[in-house]
Amino acid sequence: MVKTTDIGRFYYYFPQAVTVVGVDRNVMPVAWHTPISAQPPLFGILVSPKRYTYSLLKQEDGFTVNFMDFNEASLIAKIGGTSGRDIDKLKKFKIAYKPGEEVNGVIITSSYAAYECEKHAEHVIGDHSLFVGKIIVIHYRKEIITLDGLIDEKKLLPMLYFGKDRYITVNPQTTVVHKRG
Amino acid sequence: MVKTTDIGRFYYYFPQAVTVVGVDRNVMPVAWHTPISAQPPLFGILVSPKRYTYSLLKQEDGFTVNFMDFNEASLIAKIGGTSGRDIDKLKKFKIAYKPGEEVNGVIITSSYAAYECEKHAEHVIGDHSLFVGKIIVIHYRKEIITLDGLIDEKKLLPMLYFGKDRYITVNPQTTVVHKRG
Repeated sequence: MVKTTDIGRFYYYFPQAVTVVGVDRNVMPVAWHTPISAQPPLFGILVSPKRYTYSLLKQEDGFTVNFMDFNEASLIAKIGGTSGRDIDKLKKFKIAYKPGEEVNGVIITSSYAAYECEKHAEHVIGDHSLFVGKIIVIHYRKEIITLDGLIDEKKLLPMLYFGKDRYITVNPQTTVVHKRG
Repeated sequence: MVKTTDIGRFYYYFPQAVTVVGVDRNVMPVAWHTPISAQPPLFGILVSPKRYTYSLLKQEDGFTVNFMDFNEASLIAKIGGTSGRDIDKLKKFKIAYKPGEEVNGVIITSSYAAYECEKHAEHVIGDHSLFVGKIIVIHYRKEIITLDGLIDEKKLLPMLYFGKDRYITVNPQTTVVHKRG
């Protein structure tokens, strides 16, 4: 291995599932996200103050997090390359959706799962804000879930972001189970 | 889509790259992690207070984050199923490593990249703590990186965790590039 102290964009953490965060009528792809807590169920997204979504997150009491099929990658690129300040992305890109039931954000019809999150906390860290949401409703396609509540990779290819406009997905034939310990 | 307010483990965010966090001589797999800030370069890991790693993170000034090949999945399961309270995992599982240069954590020889992180902040959120590290050194295998500084999926298959002891990796043949906008 070689080493560097010139940190740059430190892309080694990729690939990550791409989510689409919905607030009010706006949608934005977010690849920086993580589960935070099991009980209560908390999920975090990182959003730069430069983004229009940031101003909406400050105003509203919640947001949605949509998980998308690999075959939606070109749509994700489009909604990532435009701003809700300039256009209504839902209309412009003809995105089918329904409003969240508990929060002011959209559930994208073609997503395979979506969380409705109540805003739980905001932490300003470095050049981004971590918005922590408490998951209060989950929408999902029942047919893509195993009896264990897991995504069935034989039925669904999740979209992963691999840095600099690259998208990739999993190879279902590589699935292995290794019990712990 | 169906919906539920019985949130359970909300597994829909998987798959996620598995990291191995090193503090002192201990190593622990962490699948809940995210980049947090580009400038300064910050990376966050979620660790439960129940873990031995948590007590080490409280004591020490930094930690390492190792990114592992898919073919290391059985090792990850072993180090995830045991505690550094009971055994020295490096010795027990014959893990080749070198010490970090700037922080008290290990760089695993078989990893494809590893960050050395200075402890920047801790945020207690729900049942986990978010430890935020400032990346100060990156170790990486030069041969797996493209000229753009990205992981070359033709040369390296990153290990992804898919929930409940399942591991999977990417399909390099699915890579697509979609320019934004």
